[in-house]
Amino acid sequence: MTIKISIDCMGGDHGPSVTIPAAVSFVSHEQDAELILVGLEDVIRAELKKLNASAHPRLTVVHATEIVGMDDPIEVALRRKKDSSMRVAVTLIKEGKADACVSAGNTGALMAVSRYVLKTIPGVDRPAICFPMPNQKDSPTYMLDLGANVDCEPQHLHQFALMGSALVSALEGKAKPTVGLLNIGEEDIKGNEVVKQTAALLRADHEKGTLNFYGNVEGNDIFEGTTDIVVCDGFVGNVVLKASEGLGRFLKNIVKSEFKSNAINMLGAVIAQGALKSISQRMNPSRYNGASLLGLRGLVFKSHGGEDAYGYEWAIKRAYEAARHDVLSRISTTIAELMPQPSGASASDAAGASNALI
Amino acid sequence: MTIKISIDCMGGDHGPSVTIPAAVSFVSHEQDAELILVGLEDVIRAELKKLNASAHPRLTVVHATEIVGMDDPIEVALRRKKDSSMRVAVTLIKEGKADACVSAGNTGALMAVSRYVLKTIPGVDRPAICFPMPNQKDSPTYMLDLGANVDCEPQHLHQFALMGSALVSALEGKAKPTVGLLNIGEEDIKGNEVVKQTAALLRADHEKGTLNFYGNVEGNDIFEGTTDIVVCDGFVGNVVLKASEGLGRFLKNIVKSEFKSNAINMLGAVIAQGALKSISQRMNPSRYNGASLLGLRGLVFKSHGGEDAYGYEWAIKRAYEAARHDVLSRISTTIAELMPQPSGASASDAAGASNALI
Repeated sequence: MTIKISIDCMGGDHGPSVTIPAAVSFVSHEQDAELILVGLEDVIRAELKKLNASAHPRLTVVHATEIVGMDDPIEVALRRKKDSSMRVAVTLIKEGKADACVSAGNTGALMAVSRYVLKTIPGVDRPAICFPMPNQKDSPTYMLDLGANVDCEPQHLHQFALMGSALVSALEGKAKPTVGLLNIGEEDIKGNEVVKQTAALLRADHEKGTLNFYGNVEGNDIFEGTTDIVVCDGFVGNVVLKASEGLGRFLKNIVKSEFKSNAINMLGAVIAQGALKSISQRMNPSRYNGASLLGLRGLVFKSHGGEDAYGYEWAIKRAYEAARHDVLSRISTTIAELMPQPSGASASDAAGASNALI
Repeated sequence: MTIKISIDCMGGDHGPSVTIPAAVSFVSHEQDAELILVGLEDVIRAELKKLNASAHPRLTVVHATEIVGMDDPIEVALRRKKDSSMRVAVTLIKEGKADACVSAGNTGALMAVSRYVLKTIPGVDRPAICFPMPNQKDSPTYMLDLGANVDCEPQHLHQFALMGSALVSALEGKAKPTVGLLNIGEEDIKGNEVVKQTAALLRADHEKGTLNFYGNVEGNDIFEGTTDIVVCDGFVGNVVLKASEGLGRFLKNIVKSEFKSNAINMLGAVIAQGALKSISQRMNPSRYNGASLLGLRGLVFKSHGGEDAYGYEWAIKRAYEAARHDVLSRISTTIAELMPQPSGASASDAAGASNALI
């Protein structure tokens, strides 16, 4: 079976100069992948020509006349630019022409457009952004929400836990992945009211055997890989994600500068260049590029806006893997079976979409 | 002028085997420091004897019969163990016998005991935990709150901003240190209601010239050193602090393991051992040990519970520097001048103290 992925070629800081090379490289590696390149046709075709890929049988082009800018307010993306590459790429999923979509555009706009076009899965009040963080165990810690919801109620975090569990179960082939609730201590008495009430919901699921709830986890547990999934609200998640990126860059700079500090260290660096290359690669955030927008009736993946082609290709890979493992129906089934009262919030509107704030 | 610091010798995972060597080393470096060692007298004297420091003129011992365990509930520390080394050490400040206090004990207990014994500064509703995070600019980013307050109202974050500003102004000699408000985007429309309302309060101060408010900052800005101070609630702050510790350890392990991966890399490591040593030192969190409990009528510093003597000595240094730079009166004056309506919350009680949850 061919897996079809629509690519918002115009999104991100670099647009087609990054998205097209990534797409061309990706189809050359995955023989059952077909990519639909959405955006200004002339620009896309010119880029394909440069890469000698104009006639590639698994690359098609769909023209879209508008572009959502990185600074465009959500309203502009949603109401004014109806023929944007972002919106057309997402619509292809709705029309059954694509199995998943990738965009490096403005996250808030992408979430709002996706929510408007696709709607949420029945039983999901709010979509969440989920991202695989690297950890000591070398098998990612899936963390959500990372910025779609600045304020969350316990039932939202509960839904995030179920969606995350279904995602990891599908992607990593783990029957009962562990779920941790991000808190400021392990004990039940720690944390704010929302966290305490969420813990009660998750414990009840655990007792029923429908969720493998580990309990509270702390910030360090993300990178220790204590649990497969870490659930938190979008404010905390977003701050942690960006702080981690910042700290990663800072520490990488320390390593670089020390090895350049004098001739002897530079000699050591030349000899141990294999180690340094490997360190650089393992500390490269591009390897972890590609966040999923979970809870929508379609698979939408967000690439970091500043990524290069290497990083963007990782985001395409994640979308491809999610489609291949049928993540969407796994999540829909889980939510349908386990959420006690579907809240019927699937008819999301623009007001709801404004929760998407990053 | 001699600066007197009381040391809770029994606190932390290791107690006197860490706290006493740190104290002995510290007094040998700072000629105007006098340390009051609080705890089980026999144990302290035995430790001093081992270190040939029994007769040191600037080390005195104060006996305290009880110990607050790392797992003791706050109520036990507060109501039952009235002769604990922690409580006696804090009380020495209140009695004017010490200028500052250092403990590696349970943070929640230390905050509760300090709040009960010392009370808060008039105009401060809630004390906060403040910690200097390392950054690219090699001049710390002071972040608060890091876990004393899981839920904050805008006026609390406002007070944190003023206290942080007074602290950094005193310690770093900066007349108008910059204050950033931790958020999930730079734009004013980003974030939850508490953050938006806090921004309005801080902007008003900025316009009056009483605070140098930079605006919203994101997680990465902490390590980029965008502002001198970063203000957030204790839930977010604690998660970020622990996530950073976790990521730091993870990345350090990557560096270590790669340089040990084969003989050539090991040879490179031997040649560039200066660089590796320097990296290890710069990535050593012990250098940043010592959080201040701000907003109390006394200077209380918290060392990480698991620190060794090297790390504990850093916490003593921070307490010493704060006392030397008269941080307490700087904060009191700032709050008295700038907080519009002192809320009279200084008569803190045990219920209020239970906000201290880490």
